[in-house]
Amino acid sequence: MPEDASEVYDVTIIGAGPAGLFAAFYAGLRGMRTKIVEALPEVGGQLAVLYPEKFIYDVPGHPKIMAKDLVKQLIEQIHLFEPTMVLGQRIETLTRKQFEGEEVWRLGTDTGSHLTRTVVITAGIGAFEPNKLDRPGVGDYLDKGVYYFVKDKRPFRGKKILIIGGGDTAIDWALNLKDWAESITLIHRRDQFRCHEGSMAHLKTTEIPIMTFWELKRIEGDGSAPKSATIYENRTAEERTIPVDIVLISTGFKAALGPITKWGMEMVDNRHIKTNVFMATNLPGVFAAGDIAAVEGSAPLNLIVTGFGHAAIAANACKTHIDPAARMFPGHSSEMKL
Amino acid sequence: MPEDASEVYDVTIIGAGPAGLFAAFYAGLRGMRTKIVEALPEVGGQLAVLYPEKFIYDVPGHPKIMAKDLVKQLIEQIHLFEPTMVLGQRIETLTRKQFEGEEVWRLGTDTGSHLTRTVVITAGIGAFEPNKLDRPGVGDYLDKGVYYFVKDKRPFRGKKILIIGGGDTAIDWALNLKDWAESITLIHRRDQFRCHEGSMAHLKTTEIPIMTFWELKRIEGDGSAPKSATIYENRTAEERTIPVDIVLISTGFKAALGPITKWGMEMVDNRHIKTNVFMATNLPGVFAAGDIAAVEGSAPLNLIVTGFGHAAIAANACKTHIDPAARMFPGHSSEMKL
Repeated sequence: MPEDASEVYDVTIIGAGPAGLFAAFYAGLRGMRTKIVEALPEVGGQLAVLYPEKFIYDVPGHPKIMAKDLVKQLIEQIHLFEPTMVLGQRIETLTRKQFEGEEVWRLGTDTGSHLTRTVVITAGIGAFEPNKLDRPGVGDYLDKGVYYFVKDKRPFRGKKILIIGGGDTAIDWALNLKDWAESITLIHRRDQFRCHEGSMAHLKTTEIPIMTFWELKRIEGDGSAPKSATIYENRTAEERTIPVDIVLISTGFKAALGPITKWGMEMVDNRHIKTNVFMATNLPGVFAAGDIAAVEGSAPLNLIVTGFGHAAIAANACKTHIDPAARMFPGHSSEMKL
Repeated sequence: MPEDASEVYDVTIIGAGPAGLFAAFYAGLRGMRTKIVEALPEVGGQLAVLYPEKFIYDVPGHPKIMAKDLVKQLIEQIHLFEPTMVLGQRIETLTRKQFEGEEVWRLGTDTGSHLTRTVVITAGIGAFEPNKLDRPGVGDYLDKGVYYFVKDKRPFRGKKILIIGGGDTAIDWALNLKDWAESITLIHRRDQFRCHEGSMAHLKTTEIPIMTFWELKRIEGDGSAPKSATIYENRTAEERTIPVDIVLISTGFKAALGPITKWGMEMVDNRHIKTNVFMATNLPGVFAAGDIAAVEGSAPLNLIVTGFGHAAIAANACKTHIDPAARMFPGHSSEMKL
């Protein structure tokens, strides 16, 4: 039985995506002792995992910023307050606990727990993972030439790339990497694509072969990297073996909130946590912000900017929850000595 | 009688502060024909008028940005959609009008009108102006050595500066300009200051004389610039004449919503427009966002980030108001061809 936490934080934020990081900024600004717990081994949420190298255009004051650069900026922004960062831990349970005469929240993980006066849940669409492709060779070369994400374009330079998939992500990467790679081949198991029409029109103007009804059969390599991929036509069973250095599997993601739905919070359609306009859930001192939050009476907008707004409200509401005499309004940062 | 507008916009935004500019971004992103009308001769709202040279720390993804630079970035961000900008016009009336078989809003100014399907009011705290100081010489040298704002620090370099005031703005400018000016003298009519304690403690470590109970009597100059200021002790009537190049009058601001309160919208404490969670007022197709908006059931937080969030919601709600079949969610900008 792992040891329980022995200290209580003011605010514990579940999920280190953009909303969680910005909640940590405001929690720090209000002088609260703050911890962020993230299930993944890295911060940034969807920005870091799903589209780190894509540009975002709708962050106020950033006409165009690459997702991974926004994550860097958000991390720099909270650095001022030095919140505690715990990566690679998934919160399994949320329960009340008496601790040194105070009733606090206990966040249980499979290795221990965190104690906190308030909680801000910024878990987005939940822990997400790519749809896995179970074919010989995929596991052997994972992260050594076989990728489910593009986290860094550099390994793709000058390489022969096979991209598998028919959604926006697959098409966008084909376009993005076309001048970077030696060659790109795109295979998709159907002849229908789930992507913007403009992207497909653009793709058709390139030299990239678009092979519909073709799927991956296996990847062969020399033990350290892939050398070829065998693909097949799923109607005729015709097979071909093509030389590849890299296989990018881009066949979608699934996301699941997991244990969060069982913590006693009122949910909306089982994917969102219902909050009031202060981002408070039905549990005292537990708030939700960002994509996971559904403000009562409104439609979830799932925009990064509304997530940031939620985060600011939730963090300031944590302050008034802990100290009812405190004002909700934090003051203007331009007049603070930061 | 001025000519009425002869074309109808989809969205007209009243107020070109940060919330208004960002509302224009989302309105453009949704393909709506957008106009911004601003009472002042420049865009940026409080950022441009009240503290253009101050740093802001609470814009997500900008660890530290000067207010005037944020305005520049916001303008660059909306440039993509080329909204119509009308500066220096105050909207006096908001009424319904039949126009080519359609019922639209008519925004009346003293020189004409604007016609629009939806309205987003982002007028902040209203039209604000500095408290004026009516002393001989002030009017003569206004903007030629006598200033109510610091819009540009350059004219202050190497100058003898008299700062009048005892609030955060006066103290912050004394500190900000101290290594820039030849000399600074601070006078204040009382011995109580409305500023952060840390700022005052800092000021006391400098060589800047802090003269309490002293007020401005008059400014003398050579016709093109101030040369000296006569000040007096308001308890003893003692007078002194000191050489000055610049007088910075920093004795606070007043703001007034003006005609907005008479347009038939439900107000909160006469300074905020009441909205629902979609930022809709009680008038159909009229939305409010930013500092001026009070979302029903919540406390106005008046943060720049919540204003941005409001703006995004309001602009997307304009879209569904005009086209009820449209989705509220605009899609992800990272997947758009911008």
